[in-house]
Amino acid sequence: MWITPPVLDEIVDRALREDLSGGDVTTQATVPEGAQAVATARAKSPLVVAGAVVFARVFERVLPTVRFEALVPDGAAVAPGVDVWRVHGSAQALLMAERTALNLTQRMCGTATLARAFVAALPSGSRTRVTDTRKTTPGLRVLERYAVRCGGAHNHRDNLGSAVLIKDNHIVAAGGLAEAVARARQLAPHTSAVEVEVQSMEQLEQAIAVRADVIMLDNFSLDGLRAAVARARGHAVREASGGVTLETITAIAATGVDLVSVGALTHSAPAADLSLGLALA
Amino acid sequence: MWITPPVLDEIVDRALREDLSGGDVTTQATVPEGAQAVATARAKSPLVVAGAVVFARVFERVLPTVRFEALVPDGAAVAPGVDVWRVHGSAQALLMAERTALNLTQRMCGTATLARAFVAALPSGSRTRVTDTRKTTPGLRVLERYAVRCGGAHNHRDNLGSAVLIKDNHIVAAGGLAEAVARARQLAPHTSAVEVEVQSMEQLEQAIAVRADVIMLDNFSLDGLRAAVARARGHAVREASGGVTLETITAIAATGVDLVSVGALTHSAPAADLSLGLALA
Amino acid sequence: MWITPPVLDEIVDRALREDLSGGDVTTQATVPEGAQAVATARAKSPLVVAGAVVFARVFERVLPTVRFEALVPDGAAVAPGVDVWRVHGSAQALLMAERTALNLTQRMCGTATLARAFVAALPSGSRTRVTDTRKTTPGLRVLERYAVRCGGAHNHRDNLGSAVLIKDNHIVAAGGLAEAVARARQLAPHTSAVEVEVQSMEQLEQAIAVRADVIMLDNFSLDGLRAAVARARGHAVREASGGVTLETITAIAATGVDLVSVGALTHSAPAADLSLGLALA
Amino acid sequence: MWITPPVLDEIVDRALREDLSGGDVTTQATVPEGAQAVATARAKSPLVVAGAVVFARVFERVLPTVRFEALVPDGAAVAPGVDVWRVHGSAQALLMAERTALNLTQRMCGTATLARAFVAALPSGSRTRVTDTRKTTPGLRVLERYAVRCGGAHNHRDNLGSAVLIKDNHIVAAGGLAEAVARARQLAPHTSAVEVEVQSMEQLEQAIAVRADVIMLDNFSLDGLRAAVARARGHAVREASGGVTLETITAIAATGVDLVSVGALTHSAPAADLSLGLALA
Amino acid sequence: MWITPPVLDEIVDRALREDLSGGDVTTQATVPEGAQAVATARAKSPLVVAGAVVFARVFERVLPTVRFEALVPDGAAVAPGVDVWRVHGSAQALLMAERTALNLTQRMCGTATLARAFVAALPSGSRTRVTDTRKTTPGLRVLERYAVRCGGAHNHRDNLGSAVLIKDNHIVAAGGLAEAVARARQLAPHTSAVEVEVQSMEQLEQAIAVRADVIMLDNFSLDGLRAAVARARGHAVREASGGVTLETITAIAATGVDLVSVGALTHSAPAADLSLGLALA
Amino acid sequence: MWITPPVLDEIVDRALREDLSGGDVTTQATVPEGAQAVATARAKSPLVVAGAVVFARVFERVLPTVRFEALVPDGAAVAPGVDVWRVHGSAQALLMAERTALNLTQRMCGTATLARAFVAALPSGSRTRVTDTRKTTPGLRVLERYAVRCGGAHNHRDNLGSAVLIKDNHIVAAGGLAEAVARARQLAPHTSAVEVEVQSMEQLEQAIAVRADVIMLDNFSLDGLRAAVARARGHAVREASGGVTLETITAIAATGVDLVSVGALTHSAPAADLSLGLALA
Repeated sequence: MWITPPVLDEIVDRALREDLSGGDVTTQATVPEGAQAVATARAKSPLVVAGAVVFARVFERVLPTVRFEALVPDGAAVAPGVDVWRVHGSAQALLMAERTALNLTQRMCGTATLARAFVAALPSGSRTRVTDTRKTTPGLRVLERYAVRCGGAHNHRDNLGSAVLIKDNHIVAAGGLAEAVARARQLAPHTSAVEVEVQSMEQLEQAIAVRADVIMLDNFSLDGLRAAVARARGHAVREASGGVTLETITAIAATGVDLVSVGALTHSAPAADLSLGLALA
Repeated sequence: MWITPPVLDEIVDRALREDLSGGDVTTQATVPEGAQAVATARAKSPLVVAGAVVFARVFERVLPTVRFEALVPDGAAVAPGVDVWRVHGSAQALLMAERTALNLTQRMCGTATLARAFVAALPSGSRTRVTDTRKTTPGLRVLERYAVRCGGAHNHRDNLGSAVLIKDNHIVAAGGLAEAVARARQLAPHTSAVEVEVQSMEQLEQAIAVRADVIMLDNFSLDGLRAAVARARGHAVREASGGVTLETITAIAATGVDLVSVGALTHSAPAADLSLGLALA
Repeated sequence: MWITPPVLDEIVDRALREDLSGGDVTTQATVPEGAQAVATARAKSPLVVAGAVVFARVFERVLPTVRFEALVPDGAAVAPGVDVWRVHGSAQALLMAERTALNLTQRMCGTATLARAFVAALPSGSRTRVTDTRKTTPGLRVLERYAVRCGGAHNHRDNLGSAVLIKDNHIVAAGGLAEAVARARQLAPHTSAVEVEVQSMEQLEQAIAVRADVIMLDNFSLDGLRAAVARARGHAVREASGGVTLETITAIAATGVDLVSVGALTHSAPAADLSLGLALA
Repeated sequence: MWITPPVLDEIVDRALREDLSGGDVTTQATVPEGAQAVATARAKSPLVVAGAVVFARVFERVLPTVRFEALVPDGAAVAPGVDVWRVHGSAQALLMAERTALNLTQRMCGTATLARAFVAALPSGSRTRVTDTRKTTPGLRVLERYAVRCGGAHNHRDNLGSAVLIKDNHIVAAGGLAEAVARARQLAPHTSAVEVEVQSMEQLEQAIAVRADVIMLDNFSLDGLRAAVARARGHAVREASGGVTLETITAIAATGVDLVSVGALTHSAPAADLSLGLALA
Repeated sequence: MWITPPVLDEIVDRALREDLSGGDVTTQATVPEGAQAVATARAKSPLVVAGAVVFARVFERVLPTVRFEALVPDGAAVAPGVDVWRVHGSAQALLMAERTALNLTQRMCGTATLARAFVAALPSGSRTRVTDTRKTTPGLRVLERYAVRCGGAHNHRDNLGSAVLIKDNHIVAAGGLAEAVARARQLAPHTSAVEVEVQSMEQLEQAIAVRADVIMLDNFSLDGLRAAVARARGHAVREASGGVTLETITAIAATGVDLVSVGALTHSAPAADLSLGLALA
Repeated sequence: MWITPPVLDEIVDRALREDLSGGDVTTQATVPEGAQAVATARAKSPLVVAGAVVFARVFERVLPTVRFEALVPDGAAVAPGVDVWRVHGSAQALLMAERTALNLTQRMCGTATLARAFVAALPSGSRTRVTDTRKTTPGLRVLERYAVRCGGAHNHRDNLGSAVLIKDNHIVAAGGLAEAVARARQLAPHTSAVEVEVQSMEQLEQAIAVRADVIMLDNFSLDGLRAAVARARGHAVREASGGVTLETITAIAATGVDLVSVGALTHSAPAADLSLGLALA
């Protein structure tokens, strides 16, 4: 129920039209119309499951009478060989929908799996959050943000209208950090935090002075992070960002930052290895 | 001119609405309406350029008066530090469009760059083609197929309606490979090749017997490929497929296959490292 | 199952909105909301049936609870007076959907009927295929291609991206037929045939020399066709095209061409005479 | 200016996406990007011109910089060989848009030409109007109604919401013609005429008694029409309908009916013979 | 059944996407997925009910399994405290859809309630119609016209294509009222009334002379209206218009005009006071 | 530049299609195609201007060559008789677009004017913000939020995904206020404030205890507000809400609340009295 039909169907229908506007010549020629089958999505490598509702909807939009089962819940980490989802129904429908269903969910599981890896790399007992960014696949942001949560990570702001994030160019254009924050507070809804990206301790001081809600420490060294975290404690939420990898996140989180944002969760997650086995009934 | 406005605008407008439906609170608060700027996309690591028309269009759809320059052509391989594209105009517009422009083109350059790497891994003098698959990002297939060509690789069939590709389930459902091919030839346009996926030399013989136009050798060993390539010479186009990587493609191509199809080109290419520097005028 | 909901609903919903955006004043005023009825589509002249799924979907989109029956299958040739489809349900819904359902299916049956006539005009025992062209009604191509198949004819390429068809202007622009074919082979997917339109025996020789997969013999005389068919035997699929009519197709097919493409199937088929009789329950 | 961009672009963009979503492999391979050309639409048989704005828009949507000229105005009857429209610009763009532009305008010119023929078949000096019906091509009604006017005929009601037309089933459902008219007058806007279809002189009397604005005389014999026309003179607008052809319209109009509605104008007009000659610059 | 799914779903889906594209963070965090609830729409002040089908559809589009009951029919006038509609189902779904459902139906009930007030203000026994105008909320015209009818008022023409309404500028541009009417009759469907707006008795005479079907008396004084009504009796339908309020309509209708059109019905109706009470099951 | 074309054009095109899908019969019949005109939007009563970009865009989408001038800026309060916007161009285009342009901007100016009135009713020197709510017109939220800002008021959260607002049902479903807040913090982006609606001082204490960022004091008496404001000072932003009117806002704001949210700004603002005078050139 997380992604409602008016939002989901736009994505699913567009994806199906991309692949099926001219029909499926092969399936229509070779598979008898009445043939029934069972299609099972199976993990071929370790992965975190994400996208049951998406997988089901692709098949249902090709044929409303297919029957779907989720064998493991979204968010579960599964071993290779584990069956994840199953669909029963017309063999033609299953074959026509197969690639689109996988194209969407392999990306979702890929992002969930990578998110889980980043979370697992946090120091033991860490309260640091791993978050995504706006570096999502155009048209699929809602699915990717959902996948990030399945992986145990968190979402950053949804879009340019839902929160304030002041970067270097905004500061220059506004004539200074304090001025930029003041203007943003004046315009933004009171429900939007005001976050400021800082590149130095000097800027950090300014951000604290104007009571920024969140301070993004951009590309700080580990030493720099430690100093900034200490300085901003009790003043603002502290976010580390900038080229964070699975190799670097442990040390970064160990500095005590509240958040680490990771663009790679959505811009560079490899597709999860999920295959669809189809058995004719 | 490769991607026409009715096709491109659907993608670009959807992407912009995803990020900008609620406006850009930060930019509208901090940047004066009349401020002008220049934004330059720069390669931060070696990459192959793809997507000038997409990059330009994102900015133009936010503000039609921006001025775009392509500094290097699509398909060029550039070193880190090279400036690729430039846009001049309203600072507000440039900041509002920035992330969407990058989200689209980093994926395109990522795919082009990976495609180029696969092509470069072919044995010297090889006439083997590297091709993509239908494992594309839903909603962005047209952009990714274009990026594949920028990288020097080739496209496989566009969608389920444009050519026949008979796989194991089709064969089972049709009651045999020969029957499946016969039915497909009967239904498919004469302009569509009939390709058959085979898993063994026995199936290969059947595919040759019924004059399949293209034979996909699925997950064959190198020895198997060599034998199959020799057997099918003069009978059909020979395509190798199945988990091909940068490590394995050289040996695979050396078997003399005509084509190697690589799903990773579009399902797992990491985003290219492209940054947008913005200078206020 | 040939035309999936994401593809079909776009057409059906658009058609219904065109007629019903302002409601149906007449029906809403005169027909009691609870009135039930049965609507039966009947052939008024000999025709070939095509479009059961389209007919049903129009009524279902006005009211999901209507019940549809196909009395004869798509592809059947029926005599005047034969009942083809039946829908049961709300009289208001049936009256509101009636014209849209007929507007879509009369065109489909018209095309299927004309296609059947062309197929019937082939010489006895002929193996020549009748095919459609891209001269379809904008927005309805998928329905018309389906109707062509119901009539027993075949489809040509689906759109400009699914196969190569080199015409005179392409040849001039490329600097020659051989150059055009070479460039097309380089760009096109290996799953797309390369077809070349030729106007003379000289061009035919060139097309054979570069191993075109299909050769379109454009507006050849019967003698010309015979010569060309003989010359290209074993070298390429041979397609006759250019103003083919029911009067000329027999002789054209008798020359032994593999295909005859007929634009009139989709650009000039008169609507089939199908009426909808409605009986209040 | 008759068809505004928000209405026209929906039709044109959809048509172009149908043909160009996968690009134009042939043109992109064979035609140099910088090549310029002139495309001229020429009548190949006598026809009435309709659709300049549609023709122009198709090319402009592929490439905004093309330059369009209308050589004869919409509504003009032209002889074979006359050049109608011309477009200058990128040869690639012209070739990519060609078929879509023709598919739309050949239908429009076909309808305009047929409408003109029906109007020409009216008795000399006749004041009878020829009108279209709602039997239009789904998705293209606005274009076809425009074409009907170009041919000198008139439009009937636009859709089910814009006027009342009471047919036999409405009468039965309402419990009588008078009751149906009374209910319709109660619901319908005062700006909508109330038209009643009658099948007999008895129904005609009833329709006159309740002051129907328009009376449709459905499938009346010529004698019946004459009697009905005389009886209804001064009481209502009189419309003849039902399978009217070019052979029958003269006598029907000679009975003095005010209107003759002809479904064939839009459901069965053959495409006009319009070709596009392209000359490379 | 008044507003068909292809028309209604476009409105409902767009409204839901506006509020729910990023999910409902609050509900998803706080409400267990399995929780069931009942939501009841209750009148908080006297109002006329309108929009059952719209209310139901909003919830169904969030979750197809919700169960809807209309407790009072559309068109009913209810007192404060009366329960109007009820929906049973997932508490998450009810909370996510609540605001959108109310935003649409509070406007509809507001318009219906205001329409009923205008109708109630007619003199006792009056046969004058109150009508709406084209001053509707963009995108919601079909819902507002329906609400106007629920209130007991009538609809004016649906849009610019469904009837003729000649105003001052049209008269000036055409070179006179008679010329404008003549041209409009020539172009307009015979099913469209020709209405003329007049500002003086002189124009009224001209409109009568050319047999306008409807004459709009724009901003006439009460005396002027009385004179005009008398003069036009038997010649045309007489419509009063121009800033009509609940205070002025009684006297205006008492002049004997056939219609009074009121823009405020749709452009300024305050939202009806309808609340949604939600009880967890 | 506040509302970008991909967002604005969706609204404008939909509105124009609603009115112009069948053309404008009146204008096309009566106004010569070449006639030029100037249309001027004039305030007929005191109002606050909002929507220049929307007004301009409506005309431009009917005819791109019209020329627009804003005579006063958005946000200006103007007296009756003041000209606000002007458009020059084809008389046909201006007449066809007129009603749609006014329908959109009269609502925007109406909301801006009402917002300004609420702001003006704040006590002198007050720092209290007036904000809108999510009670906007479906499909037009982005325009109404912009209009609210033109009036000098502020925006509340954009949609259900951009911030947390915990109401009574969420509290019940979660098993308590503290639990609800904890769960929301866990799920929501760190950039989203967590707001809690409270109905009593007991709930206020709980909200303070769990450090809610914003506390909505729902339907508190003035005394209750004063007590709550004092108690929550330094702990949370304090928002008053519930049926606030122009009569009650002064006293409410005088209690020292930080925010007063007013649903009427968008759900019940009467259309501003803006007329369009058209002068033929």
